[in-house]
Amino acid sequence: MTRKIRLGAFLPGGGQHVASWRHPDQPADGATSFEFHKRLALTAERGLFDAYFLADGLAVGFGGAREGGNARVAGFEPVTLFSALAPFTTHLGFIATSSTTYEEPYTTARKFASLDLISEGRAGWNVVTTTGDLTAQNFNRDTQLPHADRYRRAAEHVDVVRKLWESFEDDAFIRDKDSGVFFDPSKLHDTDHRGEHFNVRGPLNVSRSPQGHPVIVQAGQSEDGRGLAAATAEVIFTAHQHIETAQEFYRDIKARARGLGRNPDHILVMPGVSAFVGRTEAEAREKYDRLTSLIVEEDGIGLLNGLTGGTLDLHGYDLDGPLPPAPPTEGMKSRQALIRQIADENNFTIRQLYQWIASARGHYTIVGTPEQIADTLQKWFENEAADGFNILPPWLPTALDDFVDLVIPELQRRGLFRTAYEGKTLRENLGLPFPTNRWAAGRAALQAAE
Amino acid sequence: MTRKIRLGAFLPGGGQHVASWRHPDQPADGATSFEFHKRLALTAERGLFDAYFLADGLAVGFGGAREGGNARVAGFEPVTLFSALAPFTTHLGFIATSSTTYEEPYTTARKFASLDLISEGRAGWNVVTTTGDLTAQNFNRDTQLPHADRYRRAAEHVDVVRKLWESFEDDAFIRDKDSGVFFDPSKLHDTDHRGEHFNVRGPLNVSRSPQGHPVIVQAGQSEDGRGLAAATAEVIFTAHQHIETAQEFYRDIKARARGLGRNPDHILVMPGVSAFVGRTEAEAREKYDRLTSLIVEEDGIGLLNGLTGGTLDLHGYDLDGPLPPAPPTEGMKSRQALIRQIADENNFTIRQLYQWIASARGHYTIVGTPEQIADTLQKWFENEAADGFNILPPWLPTALDDFVDLVIPELQRRGLFRTAYEGKTLRENLGLPFPTNRWAAGRAALQAAE
Repeated sequence: MTRKIRLGAFLPGGGQHVASWRHPDQPADGATSFEFHKRLALTAERGLFDAYFLADGLAVGFGGAREGGNARVAGFEPVTLFSALAPFTTHLGFIATSSTTYEEPYTTARKFASLDLISEGRAGWNVVTTTGDLTAQNFNRDTQLPHADRYRRAAEHVDVVRKLWESFEDDAFIRDKDSGVFFDPSKLHDTDHRGEHFNVRGPLNVSRSPQGHPVIVQAGQSEDGRGLAAATAEVIFTAHQHIETAQEFYRDIKARARGLGRNPDHILVMPGVSAFVGRTEAEAREKYDRLTSLIVEEDGIGLLNGLTGGTLDLHGYDLDGPLPPAPPTEGMKSRQALIRQIADENNFTIRQLYQWIASARGHYTIVGTPEQIADTLQKWFENEAADGFNILPPWLPTALDDFVDLVIPELQRRGLFRTAYEGKTLRENLGLPFPTNRWAAGRAALQAAE
Repeated sequence: MTRKIRLGAFLPGGGQHVASWRHPDQPADGATSFEFHKRLALTAERGLFDAYFLADGLAVGFGGAREGGNARVAGFEPVTLFSALAPFTTHLGFIATSSTTYEEPYTTARKFASLDLISEGRAGWNVVTTTGDLTAQNFNRDTQLPHADRYRRAAEHVDVVRKLWESFEDDAFIRDKDSGVFFDPSKLHDTDHRGEHFNVRGPLNVSRSPQGHPVIVQAGQSEDGRGLAAATAEVIFTAHQHIETAQEFYRDIKARARGLGRNPDHILVMPGVSAFVGRTEAEAREKYDRLTSLIVEEDGIGLLNGLTGGTLDLHGYDLDGPLPPAPPTEGMKSRQALIRQIADENNFTIRQLYQWIASARGHYTIVGTPEQIADTLQKWFENEAADGFNILPPWLPTALDDFVDLVIPELQRRGLFRTAYEGKTLRENLGLPFPTNRWAAGRAALQAAE
């Protein structure tokens, strides 16, 4: 089978671009409209996307701006929302973000296993450590944990969740009405985890799904984040402004995975891409300019304040002057560096900077024709920069429609993208292996040795 | 408006009776089948039930038996399941159980607020403290917290959740595309809770729903449980074997509520009722006997072990002899006492005891014609024993069908039950008031004083 581009769709109901809710096509109440999210899911499935992807925050406005123009100030909890969307779709995966810092592994394992059952094997968990003191203050702390501590806790959290997902073997359930045997107790296993952060006896009270367990996704780019991703992730969401840094990241992750004894093909690297699609370059540019013109100054500043890890308040600075230096953060280290890099490379003023990152918050932004966009994706895909992409339509639903109606057919014409779903589960469509239950594997090994 | 009976439907996909999964009508995989739960929700809505109700446990088999006959060993997380069911219904409420001991208030507030938005105002939260050392061991503890500590934590947890649900005022969202004002920041409020168990800054990142916030449900019957229920609950789920104890409970709760300055009509007391419905008494009896005959001995013992708070292991006792004494428990105090009372009053052997409680785990069980069942419900309803009932069909789906097709029409003929939903939200259908946001109330009071 030829290698195909994998595509995730990043579709927050409120839109991705900071001013998207003001776009004429975008329902102003999209962030809290179930019907609108359903419309987006159906479009993503029509476009044969692998998965619908949602970020998450555990504080108002993602722990960022509380200014009156912030359309991301309130929304749905993603697992709840995806559960409701799953029955209206048949092949689309659902990757929800959930925090290792502020949840217990039993709760994490359970809600994702439940979504995985409801969707019949189409769930994914995007593992995040969740930054910011404002979030910490919603969970009995005054300040966030240091970066390294968050990642140590995350590694253990993921480990426990994976163990819990192996509580039942795949064939544990017999359900024989005649004999009264519902399941085979020898195929139900305690977890018995005792670690630095968690003691969890198990077993989990949810059975396995048709894909074994949810796909594990990760998005960290710092040294700690790369280590965690290489060790545990099956899909990596990443942000790059240039093919060169994307390649460096791609090769580094694959090498780390190989070093850990993993098959590098089983870790898919998917950079984020924001696409303004036009039938002509001029039309694409017009779409970009139109959205840029809708940015309220205050929201642009709020966006930058949030993305610099909350360490820099730009109120009072000259918006047509340069970005001032900022102290280091315990928050989104790599994102903060990326924003700085964009400002420096382009010699952007504060205003130009927020206008540029308003679309995708640091992800790669392309303004062009379907052919131009396909050229870029193809180049990255064929040159060790990406196994696929997370598409971030700047506003919704029409920028998603543009991608599905104009870019997807171009990718298909080039043989780079599927023309029908290959499988039923998210794992099958991504080409990821079914995770063998370690208890069953242990038994099989034992039997082979006898 | 005449007072009407309120009805909840307790519909675990695996069935309520310990042997229900072996019943020919019950899908053996019902506990983990989304389609089956959908069928149940649609039937409950056809029967004009107020709400679909689900219990919850945070350990395998609800922290009870792990024997191979236990069909409740695995299932869905209820909020995830209800989110997926909500869009297929239009009036049915969804009351999910969630623990105050093992979750954080921010997480609780958020998942229920999200379900409340997705269902357009039909969510309810059944507040439980969750018993058992096996559960504690899934959450970093060796043993459960003492009963009184759990209830103190529960009271504070509910208090914080209610404050979080008031983060946004009902009219906070302006969403004016022209001016770029998405919401009014003066109508978004910090929670600023600092207490014994929780420090939560807030605000919550979910907006209010059409019913203001989810309905709060409680099921405790101990002294601590009654105190918490009278102070916070809008619906109380309760278990009684006799109208006299139900009346005592009903009057006590209403008096406590009155004492706390609450309107007693805004706390609905709903005992659980398991109904075997037959067109004749003989047919009803036959249904009862048939299900009883399917109980596997080991599962009967497991059921009793679980219901006695895990303090008594009946393995090795003569099943045709009396129930031995058990040490006191920090678990389900009131349920343990109730089981003992049933054994004593009926002079039951261990076997007879588990056969009787197999249907409804201590809830009232009626075996009879629609008229006989309606007689009992009417008597309780008209004599200060109940405002409504939680119906626990012993097996599914046909025992639910029986109730909907035979008992509901009889209640309607008597003018005791609705013939159409009165409102759109759960709160409207239950006749509960819309909860005024305290910030808006404060502003209104201030304006009136000026």
